[in-house]
Amino acid sequence: MRVRLDIAYDGTDFAGWATQPNLRTVQQTVEDALSTILRLTRPVRLVVAGRTDAGVHATGQVAHADLDEIDEKTDLVRLTRKLTSLLNQSPDVVVRAVTRAPEGFDARFSPMARRYEYRIVDNDIDRDPLKRHQSAWINRPLDVTLMNDTSSSLVGLRDFGAFCKPREGATTIRELQVFEWNRDDSGALVGRLQADAFCHSMVRALVGACVEVGSGKLALKDLGDVRDAAVRTSAFKIMPAHGLTLTEVIYPPDDQLGARAQLTRVKRDATGNGSDS
Amino acid sequence: MRVRLDIAYDGTDFAGWATQPNLRTVQQTVEDALSTILRLTRPVRLVVAGRTDAGVHATGQVAHADLDEIDEKTDLVRLTRKLTSLLNQSPDVVVRAVTRAPEGFDARFSPMARRYEYRIVDNDIDRDPLKRHQSAWINRPLDVTLMNDTSSSLVGLRDFGAFCKPREGATTIRELQVFEWNRDDSGALVGRLQADAFCHSMVRALVGACVEVGSGKLALKDLGDVRDAAVRTSAFKIMPAHGLTLTEVIYPPDDQLGARAQLTRVKRDATGNGSDS
Repeated sequence: MRVRLDIAYDGTDFAGWATQPNLRTVQQTVEDALSTILRLTRPVRLVVAGRTDAGVHATGQVAHADLDEIDEKTDLVRLTRKLTSLLNQSPDVVVRAVTRAPEGFDARFSPMARRYEYRIVDNDIDRDPLKRHQSAWINRPLDVTLMNDTSSSLVGLRDFGAFCKPREGATTIRELQVFEWNRDDSGALVGRLQADAFCHSMVRALVGACVEVGSGKLALKDLGDVRDAAVRTSAFKIMPAHGLTLTEVIYPPDDQLGARAQLTRVKRDATGNGSDS
Repeated sequence: MRVRLDIAYDGTDFAGWATQPNLRTVQQTVEDALSTILRLTRPVRLVVAGRTDAGVHATGQVAHADLDEIDEKTDLVRLTRKLTSLLNQSPDVVVRAVTRAPEGFDARFSPMARRYEYRIVDNDIDRDPLKRHQSAWINRPLDVTLMNDTSSSLVGLRDFGAFCKPREGATTIRELQVFEWNRDDSGALVGRLQADAFCHSMVRALVGACVEVGSGKLALKDLGDVRDAAVRTSAFKIMPAHGLTLTEVIYPPDDQLGARAQLTRVKRDATGNGSDS
């Protein structure tokens, strides 16, 4: 039986989502907890919607696992409660729900879109040490109108080669559907992004471009040239990981889950792009 | 010249405000930074409005220091900027402003009131690991109406002996002016408290009483008896420190600062109560 897991974590003390030898990762922590509770003798393997980097947070991460030990009669509410209780020893990750996955559901291939937020505290507002793990602090004022002019100029279906870490044979074409900036109640700048998928370090590069223009260091027109050239650039910085949070993964209606997953697989096979998020 | 410092901190990795040998404290961290920047050869001593315990946070802490090195001509904006920059190495504490203290200002004795917030995530809502350092997690549902009935029954000028760690010769009479509960956008229960002053562990005991009644473990009437007996009790728990934040210190208008400080001193001398907050 396939189950869906809804997961939230503070990325500060994790070496990212994906399991790596001798490092504390979210994937390993949750897989170990599942194994313990289900008394598994073989390893369980989670497949995830967004493979976040070290330091990146999530409030709306989604994963799936195929588990022979779970059937129609298993009490998943009780299983979730046991997971919560066991993970209390690692309170920086919370499994909010374990549910039966609908037919055709694939955490990684079924999504229509991913949503991220990036939080910046510029020097116009008070720094809140209680939010320092989720905010990039910048020592200059940022113009929110310029930031929004920049983000608007990046939205669309295009080659994001200027904003992606290149990978052999992988496409850098994505559809950035939403990218907008607002100041929250505390005055912090919050950028909200949505795309069908993001390539590696793409969100942090897009935010870096906005910061460069928003602080007056780069002209919007020059950024346009960089964007259109679609090759890696040093015109802006990749922003630090800790300002970034994966907030939501959007899936299609249940009856389209399988078709959507198949479509994504075909597209990725065609482009050789098998491991973005 | 006396200066006023407005300070915010994440209490997680501090052994509280007050300096203690071989422990990392907020007071020592800020005093050391001031000494370095002003190149002081003798120790500087901060006097604080609220001496928070280990693990307690502050967004609105206030302190003062008397510094011969600062006069009318000192650029305090520049000094604040230098402090911010130096404290970047300890980003869990931020000095938001250093300003000339008005005549008669005393960070500890001039306040009219202190405000605190306590944040609880009960089992009716999703736990957010990103806020775990500022929230107490409780494994049962809390009734916000019962919580408010409880907090209302505690407001007033009374002997808070049931909620205070007793200290030889010190009064436990306080005026609790505000104590109310609301659920915030995320569903977390936030208690807001205001009093002329709080004795040691008083906020966390008051919150503990509300949790006991709000979860149905203690009858409101029985809590009334405990309150009126005004002696230490085991009827409720002292809540954990990390749910608590000092949010504001309220001072009277400038022309009443000196009179207010004198009044507080006389009251404390009369009761032998010299070190609450």
